[in-house]
Amino acid sequence: MTAVCELCREEDGSGGEILFRNDKLRVVLIDDGNYPGFCRVIWNAHVAEMTDLPPADRSLLMRTVCQVEEALRQVMKPLKINLASLGNMVPHLHWHLIPRYADDAHFPNPVWAPAARQTAPDVLAARQALLPALRAAVKQYAGCAD
Amino acid sequence: MTAVCELCREEDGSGGEILFRNDKLRVVLIDDGNYPGFCRVIWNAHVAEMTDLPPADRSLLMRTVCQVEEALRQVMKPLKINLASLGNMVPHLHWHLIPRYADDAHFPNPVWAPAARQTAPDVLAARQALLPALRAAVKQYAGCAD
Repeated sequence: MTAVCELCREEDGSGGEILFRNDKLRVVLIDDGNYPGFCRVIWNAHVAEMTDLPPADRSLLMRTVCQVEEALRQVMKPLKINLASLGNMVPHLHWHLIPRYADDAHFPNPVWAPAARQTAPDVLAARQALLPALRAAVKQYAGCAD
Repeated sequence: MTAVCELCREEDGSGGEILFRNDKLRVVLIDDGNYPGFCRVIWNAHVAEMTDLPPADRSLLMRTVCQVEEALRQVMKPLKINLASLGNMVPHLHWHLIPRYADDAHFPNPVWAPAARQTAPDVLAARQALLPALRAAVKQYAGCAD
């Protein structure tokens, strides 16, 4: 664990609202105006790569990622889900889960590319209005045995 | 399966050199001048999302992703591994595995961000020279029981 890792320091927040937490990981709803529903699944311990985890923990982490993906698909009804574990700036294992739509700010490019457009405010407001249902679905699915 | 999906049509190539293949998936070494060692793990059947697969297939796919990650780490010795399943343009399940270095074209940003620099040709040549060892390691690890 490094002294400066924000995902170790901000263990109670991690840049958003914690929707689920156990001794291994936490699920955080990110406050991103362009991407309502953007979630992260963050491994609690400070490891950098998937293959730094023993296989059983890799499976546990990906099972949670898939549970959050299920919740996102069911509630947000995106055109596509984007999953990414990057960590170049913060090398503490975390997964980005981003619901994507044809009218989002970057589609069809990754959200890290230059923006292509501004999504209409009423469209973003309609997606924001789904967040209570998303919170409930993540809390229902995350951590289930399968 | 759609008529136009390039990951269905190009099943024998998929934009690179197939290093491993079984009835479920294939591992492809991508020819990217800026990112020697860039690999993809491509699910053979035309499904869009991880959660379109039954849990056993999700596990099989991620086990292979981790096997390729191990090979990349062992041979290419990157500063970080980036993993991503995006599929906005080609909604056929595939994982990008990208070895990242402090002097690569985009670091610390994702490879989809605007380029930050041009990596020195001798550095890229040294990484290219590792590809025979990477091919061997992927072929050794991919598809093993664990």
